Amino acid sequence: MSALRTPAAVRSETDSLGTLEVPADSYWGASTVRAVENFPVSGRPIGSLRQLIWAFGAVKAAAARTNAAQGLVAPERAAAIGRASMEVMNGELDEHFVVDRIQGGAGTSTNMNVNEVIANRGLELLGYAKGDYAQLDPIDDVNRSQSTNDTYPTAAKLALHQELIALCDEHERLAKAFADKSRRFASIVKIGRTQLQDAVPMTLGQEFGAFAETLREDRERLLEMRVHLREVNLGATAIGTGITTTAAYRAQVVKELASISGIPVIPAVNLVEATSDTGVFMLLSGVIKRAAMKLSKICNDLRLLSSGPQAGFGEIHLPAVQAGSSIMPGKVNPVIPEMVNQVAFRIAGADTTVTMAAEAGQLQLNAFEPVMVDALLESIQWLGSACRLLRTRCVEGISANEPLLARRMEETLSIVTALTPLLGYSLSAELAKEALRGSKSITALIAERGLLTTEQLDAALSLAALTGTTN
Amino acid sequence: MSALRTPAAVRSETDSLGTLEVPADSYWGASTVRAVENFPVSGRPIGSLRQLIWAFGAVKAAAARTNAAQGLVAPERAAAIGRASMEVMNGELDEHFVVDRIQGGAGTSTNMNVNEVIANRGLELLGYAKGDYAQLDPIDDVNRSQSTNDTYPTAAKLALHQELIALCDEHERLAKAFADKSRRFASIVKIGRTQLQDAVPMTLGQEFGAFAETLREDRERLLEMRVHLREVNLGATAIGTGITTTAAYRAQVVKELASISGIPVIPAVNLVEATSDTGVFMLLSGVIKRAAMKLSKICNDLRLLSSGPQAGFGEIHLPAVQAGSSIMPGKVNPVIPEMVNQVAFRIAGADTTVTMAAEAGQLQLNAFEPVMVDALLESIQWLGSACRLLRTRCVEGISANEPLLARRMEETLSIVTALTPLLGYSLSAELAKEALRGSKSITALIAERGLLTTEQLDAALSLAALTGTTN
Amino acid sequence: MSALRTPAAVRSETDSLGTLEVPADSYWGASTVRAVENFPVSGRPIGSLRQLIWAFGAVKAAAARTNAAQGLVAPERAAAIGRASMEVMNGELDEHFVVDRIQGGAGTSTNMNVNEVIANRGLELLGYAKGDYAQLDPIDDVNRSQSTNDTYPTAAKLALHQELIALCDEHERLAKAFADKSRRFASIVKIGRTQLQDAVPMTLGQEFGAFAETLREDRERLLEMRVHLREVNLGATAIGTGITTTAAYRAQVVKELASISGIPVIPAVNLVEATSDTGVFMLLSGVIKRAAMKLSKICNDLRLLSSGPQAGFGEIHLPAVQAGSSIMPGKVNPVIPEMVNQVAFRIAGADTTVTMAAEAGQLQLNAFEPVMVDALLESIQWLGSACRLLRTRCVEGISANEPLLARRMEETLSIVTALTPLLGYSLSAELAKEALRGSKSITALIAERGLLTTEQLDAALSLAALTGTTN
Amino acid sequence: MSALRTPAAVRSETDSLGTLEVPADSYWGASTVRAVENFPVSGRPIGSLRQLIWAFGAVKAAAARTNAAQGLVAPERAAAIGRASMEVMNGELDEHFVVDRIQGGAGTSTNMNVNEVIANRGLELLGYAKGDYAQLDPIDDVNRSQSTNDTYPTAAKLALHQELIALCDEHERLAKAFADKSRRFASIVKIGRTQLQDAVPMTLGQEFGAFAETLREDRERLLEMRVHLREVNLGATAIGTGITTTAAYRAQVVKELASISGIPVIPAVNLVEATSDTGVFMLLSGVIKRAAMKLSKICNDLRLLSSGPQAGFGEIHLPAVQAGSSIMPGKVNPVIPEMVNQVAFRIAGADTTVTMAAEAGQLQLNAFEPVMVDALLESIQWLGSACRLLRTRCVEGISANEPLLARRMEETLSIVTALTPLLGYSLSAELAKEALRGSKSITALIAERGLLTTEQLDAALSLAALTGTTN
Repeated sequence: MSALRTPAAVRSETDSLGTLEVPADSYWGASTVRAVENFPVSGRPIGSLRQLIWAFGAVKAAAARTNAAQGLVAPERAAAIGRASMEVMNGELDEHFVVDRIQGGAGTSTNMNVNEVIANRGLELLGYAKGDYAQLDPIDDVNRSQSTNDTYPTAAKLALHQELIALCDEHERLAKAFADKSRRFASIVKIGRTQLQDAVPMTLGQEFGAFAETLREDRERLLEMRVHLREVNLGATAIGTGITTTAAYRAQVVKELASISGIPVIPAVNLVEATSDTGVFMLLSGVIKRAAMKLSKICNDLRLLSSGPQAGFGEIHLPAVQAGSSIMPGKVNPVIPEMVNQVAFRIAGADTTVTMAAEAGQLQLNAFEPVMVDALLESIQWLGSACRLLRTRCVEGISANEPLLARRMEETLSIVTALTPLLGYSLSAELAKEALRGSKSITALIAERGLLTTEQLDAALSLAALTGTTN
Repeated sequence: MSALRTPAAVRSETDSLGTLEVPADSYWGASTVRAVENFPVSGRPIGSLRQLIWAFGAVKAAAARTNAAQGLVAPERAAAIGRASMEVMNGELDEHFVVDRIQGGAGTSTNMNVNEVIANRGLELLGYAKGDYAQLDPIDDVNRSQSTNDTYPTAAKLALHQELIALCDEHERLAKAFADKSRRFASIVKIGRTQLQDAVPMTLGQEFGAFAETLREDRERLLEMRVHLREVNLGATAIGTGITTTAAYRAQVVKELASISGIPVIPAVNLVEATSDTGVFMLLSGVIKRAAMKLSKICNDLRLLSSGPQAGFGEIHLPAVQAGSSIMPGKVNPVIPEMVNQVAFRIAGADTTVTMAAEAGQLQLNAFEPVMVDALLESIQWLGSACRLLRTRCVEGISANEPLLARRMEETLSIVTALTPLLGYSLSAELAKEALRGSKSITALIAERGLLTTEQLDAALSLAALTGTTN
Repeated sequence: MSALRTPAAVRSETDSLGTLEVPADSYWGASTVRAVENFPVSGRPIGSLRQLIWAFGAVKAAAARTNAAQGLVAPERAAAIGRASMEVMNGELDEHFVVDRIQGGAGTSTNMNVNEVIANRGLELLGYAKGDYAQLDPIDDVNRSQSTNDTYPTAAKLALHQELIALCDEHERLAKAFADKSRRFASIVKIGRTQLQDAVPMTLGQEFGAFAETLREDRERLLEMRVHLREVNLGATAIGTGITTTAAYRAQVVKELASISGIPVIPAVNLVEATSDTGVFMLLSGVIKRAAMKLSKICNDLRLLSSGPQAGFGEIHLPAVQAGSSIMPGKVNPVIPEMVNQVAFRIAGADTTVTMAAEAGQLQLNAFEPVMVDALLESIQWLGSACRLLRTRCVEGISANEPLLARRMEETLSIVTALTPLLGYSLSAELAKEALRGSKSITALIAERGLLTTEQLDAALSLAALTGTTN
Repeated sequence: MSALRTPAAVRSETDSLGTLEVPADSYWGASTVRAVENFPVSGRPIGSLRQLIWAFGAVKAAAARTNAAQGLVAPERAAAIGRASMEVMNGELDEHFVVDRIQGGAGTSTNMNVNEVIANRGLELLGYAKGDYAQLDPIDDVNRSQSTNDTYPTAAKLALHQELIALCDEHERLAKAFADKSRRFASIVKIGRTQLQDAVPMTLGQEFGAFAETLREDRERLLEMRVHLREVNLGATAIGTGITTTAAYRAQVVKELASISGIPVIPAVNLVEATSDTGVFMLLSGVIKRAAMKLSKICNDLRLLSSGPQAGFGEIHLPAVQAGSSIMPGKVNPVIPEMVNQVAFRIAGADTTVTMAAEAGQLQLNAFEPVMVDALLESIQWLGSACRLLRTRCVEGISANEPLLARRMEETLSIVTALTPLLGYSLSAELAKEALRGSKSITALIAERGLLTTEQLDAALSLAALTGTTN
């Protein structure tokens, strides 16, 4: 990280491993420097995870308020921590969160980066020099009554909670776009397909209505995750026994967090369990993966229905958003659904990551939470973007190829199923085969053989009867 | 399948592909024969999926009752179907369900195997010869008002519902066994560990209590799946439009199914969506995988805590259930937890299978439900067995290595964290380092330097303070 | 397992955990009984893994021969072990291998089941009573100079080696079937598609030729795995140090195994590494997964190309192997490709299982080999069956819908790409758009505008030029 | 992307979708603008994939040279393309590659971004204004005789080839570091463990030697991938038929690419197959995953062996690279191995992504290559970083806890296995049990009972005999 190289001026800091130099004006300190040197992996700093930084600020503010109320940290120190934490929440200090998103240590480096930035910003607010930790200490003051092991998962859950809500908003808008199309396509009849084979009639509106409905169900499952994300282990400290805290602190700090964050967080039932358990991340990952897979299936369908223009299904037109090919003139490709498919494949991969990381937890802690949190935040953000782009750049512009659909309905054999209650399966199958071979339609064959009256046929083959819209 | 070879006598059956011979006394017919020949893959017949067969019997009975009530199938035919269906439910005909569990066709071969067995058993009950389908037809009578595409997923969900309840019973017993141990180990103090490093004190009871609690949470998540499994698309027929059925039939058949099965099933909100959607299978798979991963984590902990006997953690003893080695005398291995780990790895694999199969659904149907259903039923059954064996052959027999734990507590540095509120982090770290290097304990060093009074030390290092059991 | 219940007569056996009763006439003994009781998980005994049992027989025979030659086991005892081992290899004793395929203990229960069956069958051959282990001991004689930890992985690799060869034979036949079709379809022109959109012309023969070629490449990758499977750790005993063996034994036993099995096995370079390493299983799993995914992609293409019959691509006909639907008369579904897709999804799942099991190995051994071996053997067998069924029940019967393809070529705009070197991309795109809108073909528009001469057009649009078959 | 907003001056560009404005001085043009607007997903531009940009430059240079030689592009235009391509290769234009790494369209947007940057930089070199495509056209000149569908996979393979070599260099250094430790620890005896239970003796050198050896094997597998990556489909254009190219072009262009890139690329055997096939990505992903899983296993072992310091295995010390805890003074955690574990979990996830993307390819192209390429490049880079950090910040500083290991060897029962050839398994087991219960060592018990002479014992329990270092 270039910020660490050749600073104009330096200050010395000492931690339990020894003394080292940090840029004189940096908010972060020794622990952050070590972490930056230890984990140059993804090149993506935690400061790019806006909601995680916001949530960590909220946690630190809640702890500071509680520590002050309980007489554990001096009021002026707690106030400085509180002010600096608000700046962290507001995103004013994002650039100072420089540790890599992929890191060992169960989030300790993230927590220490936060502790150091708040301490030094607090020192600045108090009128002291950065690094003058005797006046405000990253650990003894900012981290007082806390451990990485309760602050990190608490902040992670809050961050996921907020991103999830943003995702659900986009998800709802997408469902609405499909529902709009469903209404617009309500009277367009087409051949429904099972196993890619022509099956029985339906309306294009029913097809798009199913997309809207399936998205609605996913959104409900996603929203249900909020309640699990709100159960936090703040106060658990190192392993859930609450060591270094008091019962009074533990009772207050979660309430303060709820107040500061605006999220109705509650304490976990069993803090020892809650400190090692990453079940909520697996649960959330599973539900996100489900939503992604179903969206991928919808995109597969859109690509299939718009295949052609001449030698494919050709039932709908997707809007052209870019030239399709660098070699084939006039070609327009379903690039937006293809992008969504790929986002879905990444999300399925993220679920593998989360699964393995969760299973690998040992004894009183899961050291692999950072990779889970990173994967989940990325999955949620990408899925949200995918929903938005799919809606604005594809679904809203979809139109039906009505002439083709009408022509196909005239020729179709798929109506024969509607006649099986009247003719039986075997005779119906025979008629279908004959019609496919020859030039006569099924209705003509039925009339020719006198199998049904015109009234019977009309009733059985009405749009309502065929598509179940009434009966 | 040997049952299909060299039958003593045969009868001819004709389906839409032509005529073929089936053993004269077989309950299955032409469609089953073709399916058996098409899918010799796993060698595991659907008849080995007891709950699926039970559920399919219930579906067919419900349809028969409704068809009779609606005047769609003659009463005596419906009655025969009903009686045969009950035998199917009761497991009397399991051996006749011979189609492979891995099959193409979205479950059509399973549905036809059921239709044929019920038709021929019904014919037998009515006094007709097997194969005399003019009297009772597998399709026009047994399958009347139905499609594979509504009966198969409906039966699959009911089967999963029942297996899930059985799993939860075993899961609860396992949690109880851990809770029992937790109470028994409530006063045994030990070193809690984070990142495999000695952290702070806790009780062995807290450790086992966390296992019990985490299992309880999983069971709640598993039980929540029941409500999703109860939403069925029976009446949807081919693609959800209900073609070949009436509104009255659709309204009645789900109620009949609830009555016959004893499961409060309800109709899906949108039958078109419900017929292609496999979201419930993904949701269930995710929750099962979570339960499996968490159980695997517990087993990893048990193996770690019992490692040794001389050069490991050695904190607990697992019961010896078999000689550990064919070469190393006296060795006893944690074979039961190892088995559970492997079951968990299979379940993670099954989730991959379910995910890919769900994503691959196209348009109005997902043709890959059979592999999802097979994977899920297997996962649930194996997890249930794993829970039972882990309880009876391992957890119930676990004992603590109290002398070792007591000795370790005497030497431990892990109490130093409890002193940080009094001494600050830096000084505490210095004391810990010195104690680890030298021969003096931390408390001796504190006394020597006069840092704290005896009263302060006693209060800070009481069992209650250390383990958070009171404060 | 019913075989263990209510035996007519029993004998007592004692192992390091105590004394228990086994059926008097059973070949297996105390260790097997304990294992059967410990692992009732899948209900699938190891005796159903023919190649694994064959391979274990070979390993035991090789060890017996070497032990005799080195004077470690008395000649008559070694001879009896050798004879019994041959019967094991030949499959004569398969029913006596009753331990569950899913088992803890790193394969110890499988090894002990083998040791006991060989000991008791050997005792029988020597004229002693079963259980008279003073005459021939399952451990001290049959397992002499061995451990589960070298015999089990060695046998597993041999089993996989043989199954792999069988798979490759089926795989080759399938590739040949595609190649045959490729030749037959060599002169049928069609529209090639990228991103499901009409792209440029090709022949149906080229399309099927690509299937054949891609399968050929997979087979080469699969066959390359043989060399890795032939590197065994026999002689490593418990952890690779060869404890309880001599250098002379180690040098000889692998040669004996090569001679007995007919597979040119060689000793691993580093026996300590080889005893804990399961890299070969991951490598093999990856290559099998690749083959399965590519086969799944081919089946997706076959299903797509045969979609219709009226409202789909409709370019090829798959043979009808069963009635497609229980409700839609005349419907024929691509059930064989669908089955192959599902096998592929299971194989992807098995790779997840293998991955997690491999990662979970600890220190000098991976205790989770049984689930890896079970998953891999199943994957290979299912993939082989899928290849065979796809060939015999689908590919060999595929025919082209030539009239449709010819009609489409007359209308197609996909030839426009061939004109870009002459007209430039922009003008070509403009012509394509105009042709798609209006009623005139591209060639008519070109003639009308005098853009190219007839000779130029003929040259650019010749079959050879379009499909690259000559240039 | 801020670069696209409110440019000081603009130029108009027209593509087949219409006219739009681009910043007057930008090297990219209309297609890039559309792509940037279509795919704001990951926020990571393709310009951050150095090797991919390098490779794309090489491909464009090779095509330009061949087009010039074949008279397809005017010499001065080809020269300008060539010069601009060299700048692309050298990284001088990286900031202008602004399309998102996650994109629909099979890489078309990447190819067009490259075409536009080269065209405009070429125009600049020729003295024309940017956007004056009549003088040098992104498609008709830069992309001449090419398609995304051959250039993109070709460039991707070259990029992976180069990253792979860099990874292997780091991988080799890590193996060497383990080998160095192996030599240093060659005479330190310890208890080997199987299934986490004390097994038989070995040296710490053997343990670290196994790590070195297993890494060596992985590196060989990784290096073997190079040959597969060198088989390219350049010249295939849209679907492998080579449309818009000549045979002479196709023959020359791959040779030019080999010359320019320095990588001995060869043409694929079957260009139609090669254009849709993504098998090489799956193969590579599988081998990378294997390497990652094995490295994760090694890190698990390092964490286990260094667990403690008082209540764990405690056999080795990992260097302290940062303070371990924000709450527990003096705690040092294995943060570097933990980081490596997490990288491995991401790589396992990436393999899921690659698998699903590969399976989803349809007909003549796989539209999902961008997500595969992104996932693989990230996996390789992260794995390389993980190897480097593990070596420099962990392995090189590992030391043995010799006093503890020596003390354990004095007490150990694990030597008993070495006596089984002399005493038999049952008696040995009895002795081991008695020793574990009581206070006498096994050798004392043997002496007491006169079971073996001192000479026998000394021979059987020599270091060489126990660890197999000689025999």
